[in-house]
Amino acid sequence: MDRYLVISSDGHAGPRPEVYRDYLDPQYRAEFDVQHAARMAALEQAGEMLEMRQETIRWGQDKAHGLAGAWDSDRRNEILDADGVAAEILFVDGLTESNSPPFGGDLGLQPVGVVPELQWAGARAHNRWMAEFVAQCPLRRFGLASVTPYWGVDEAVKEVRWARVNGLRGIMLPHMMTGQDPYHHPKYEPLWRVCAELGMVIHFHSGAAPMQEYFGAALFGPQAGAEPPVPLPGALGIYVTEVAWWLTRPLVFMIWGGVFERHPQLKVAITEGSTIWVPELLALMDQRFGDHHFSAKLGTGYKQHLRLKPSEYFRRNVRVGSSAMSRREAEMRHQIGLQTIMWGSDYPHPEGTWPLTRQMMVEVFRGLPEAETEAMLGGNAADFYGFDRAALAPIAARIGPERSLFAAA
Amino acid sequence: MDRYLVISSDGHAGPRPEVYRDYLDPQYRAEFDVQHAARMAALEQAGEMLEMRQETIRWGQDKAHGLAGAWDSDRRNEILDADGVAAEILFVDGLTESNSPPFGGDLGLQPVGVVPELQWAGARAHNRWMAEFVAQCPLRRFGLASVTPYWGVDEAVKEVRWARVNGLRGIMLPHMMTGQDPYHHPKYEPLWRVCAELGMVIHFHSGAAPMQEYFGAALFGPQAGAEPPVPLPGALGIYVTEVAWWLTRPLVFMIWGGVFERHPQLKVAITEGSTIWVPELLALMDQRFGDHHFSAKLGTGYKQHLRLKPSEYFRRNVRVGSSAMSRREAEMRHQIGLQTIMWGSDYPHPEGTWPLTRQMMVEVFRGLPEAETEAMLGGNAADFYGFDRAALAPIAARIGPERSLFAAA
Repeated sequence: MDRYLVISSDGHAGPRPEVYRDYLDPQYRAEFDVQHAARMAALEQAGEMLEMRQETIRWGQDKAHGLAGAWDSDRRNEILDADGVAAEILFVDGLTESNSPPFGGDLGLQPVGVVPELQWAGARAHNRWMAEFVAQCPLRRFGLASVTPYWGVDEAVKEVRWARVNGLRGIMLPHMMTGQDPYHHPKYEPLWRVCAELGMVIHFHSGAAPMQEYFGAALFGPQAGAEPPVPLPGALGIYVTEVAWWLTRPLVFMIWGGVFERHPQLKVAITEGSTIWVPELLALMDQRFGDHHFSAKLGTGYKQHLRLKPSEYFRRNVRVGSSAMSRREAEMRHQIGLQTIMWGSDYPHPEGTWPLTRQMMVEVFRGLPEAETEAMLGGNAADFYGFDRAALAPIAARIGPERSLFAAA
Repeated sequence: MDRYLVISSDGHAGPRPEVYRDYLDPQYRAEFDVQHAARMAALEQAGEMLEMRQETIRWGQDKAHGLAGAWDSDRRNEILDADGVAAEILFVDGLTESNSPPFGGDLGLQPVGVVPELQWAGARAHNRWMAEFVAQCPLRRFGLASVTPYWGVDEAVKEVRWARVNGLRGIMLPHMMTGQDPYHHPKYEPLWRVCAELGMVIHFHSGAAPMQEYFGAALFGPQAGAEPPVPLPGALGIYVTEVAWWLTRPLVFMIWGGVFERHPQLKVAITEGSTIWVPELLALMDQRFGDHHFSAKLGTGYKQHLRLKPSEYFRRNVRVGSSAMSRREAEMRHQIGLQTIMWGSDYPHPEGTWPLTRQMMVEVFRGLPEAETEAMLGGNAADFYGFDRAALAPIAARIGPERSLFAAA
């Protein structure tokens, strides 16, 4: 084939925000009406957050046709064809026309400031919508259910089973564990077990972080005391510096907690936090696991349940979705791990590659060995997620980027 | 001179725990008696924490003579002479015979589970003791006051002034900001100002981290609900993986918050978290600061108060104390920044270099250019802290490690 099979490890889809009302269980619709109105009004926040929203709106001004691919099945395939993408992993959206699911059932699924029952209702509304969206083109769409494990592991297990039966192939879990039992807690065992049993791939997706720490009370509610709230300077800089660390945190808890020791088949993808962090994190964990001067005082109790080194669990069980991947990552591919890297477009988000996907792909992969480009652009994802390569081949042959474009200049 | 001037960026000193009673203001002594007894009893904790404590005790069994340098002035100089160390930066201890100051006034200074007034009392007891300890040999001892800024910035400013008058030359601040206003909050302005004005070097020292998240309720108090507490597996592995990140976090807040923009003279040292993280953190912050595809949607509000790049503030205002420095760091010295690295022994802690300091130094620096070894072993610290090189020269000439030992094998 003279074209690459491209699979995006990071796509977002969701209906216009008001549409979620119809996907909610009826008893939550009155509350939806109240909260939806309040949320739309609150979007006009002050300061850096408002500026970020304005930049997103400005970027989208001339892109209404393409952005409708967030919810329109035909439009989505049209855009993917133009981008050269044969298939994709689908997370909830939230940026396109501010289409987050209601009640905190959004991309962050943060366990703070939410009512558990309502957060579940919001997440389930999205999962129902996503199941329909995937059913419109199951070959090209690997859909994820949003699952919060904090409000009862049994509920989470039930949702995983529901998702599998309804054509979704993986789940997204919140990576912020704020105030909840973190992911090395044995209580999550049934969740890991059902995911391993059903082959449901677990995802953590970038975005959430302790925003109140960054932005302060000005944006996130009143401060104790009588003084007027003070917006904190540089908050967005701190956010974009830390955001990938919060994303990767659950992995550290799962590896040391022995989750992959007990579930060798479990698959985890870490998405949209770049892949730059991989070499140092693995080196650090392996050093802490091994016999190092610093570790001598630690004893052995913290690692005797692990038969492999942390990096070995990582290589076996984990892949990383690199959204709008950089040339630097391509150059570091052997340190990062060639098999670890799964390119992603992040369509339809402004920090993604669309509508310049083909051009950005070429800039990133130009001149690399074909087999390696093939792996990062789609082969690794095809293997990890179990895509039907034979069925996707005709699509790739029609719309995939031509290999010749990637030749060294 | 045929020997190196060695300055340890990381030393710990403090009296036996019961001695802190005498350094407390009298009104806190009754409470000290109650809490001291409880703390000593609680040290026999279960699980990995106990194992770590046992390893520390085992390591110290044949070292009572040397460990007494934690509080005995003559003994300390004897050990430093044997180690080849001419001078050192002195933090509070806590490991040697469990000699943490009372009431949470310890190395972590965590703002959780403490009574502010008592935490101040504990920290001040230590600061008084440290001032005396420094006065016994001021040439070789750069002593730090422990300061918590969370319970009123005015109190913190007063303590900085007290410390300066009493011969201490810098302060240690808590790096865990849990639930308190983080370090980009404008309320801390008077603290940065007084430190810049008096030339008091600010320190963050490794150790504190969200232990309850790692170890769970088994070690840190009862969980909500009726079930018995469950110790969480792999907790120490998570701790040693994350601990350096928590240490460096305040730096990210201070840089983006513009603290170094407003206070070009302010000095910050980050101690005992290795230096491995420096290149990636600076690359990441500069990327987020610059015009990068990912940053386009951020607008400019988050950085318009910064005239320099994050890495430029770092190079100008920050140094890193590398305790029990590794060969890998020496090999990465130009990526890390030759001037950034300040070797440290961490005496008298088990993860430090003592009593093998001379041998470990040689292993780390063997074969490097002499001027570079000189900078990392002591020159950088001499410049940063303003040590009196002329006065230290005779000591270094007597006890410093011989340059010839470091020649390539």
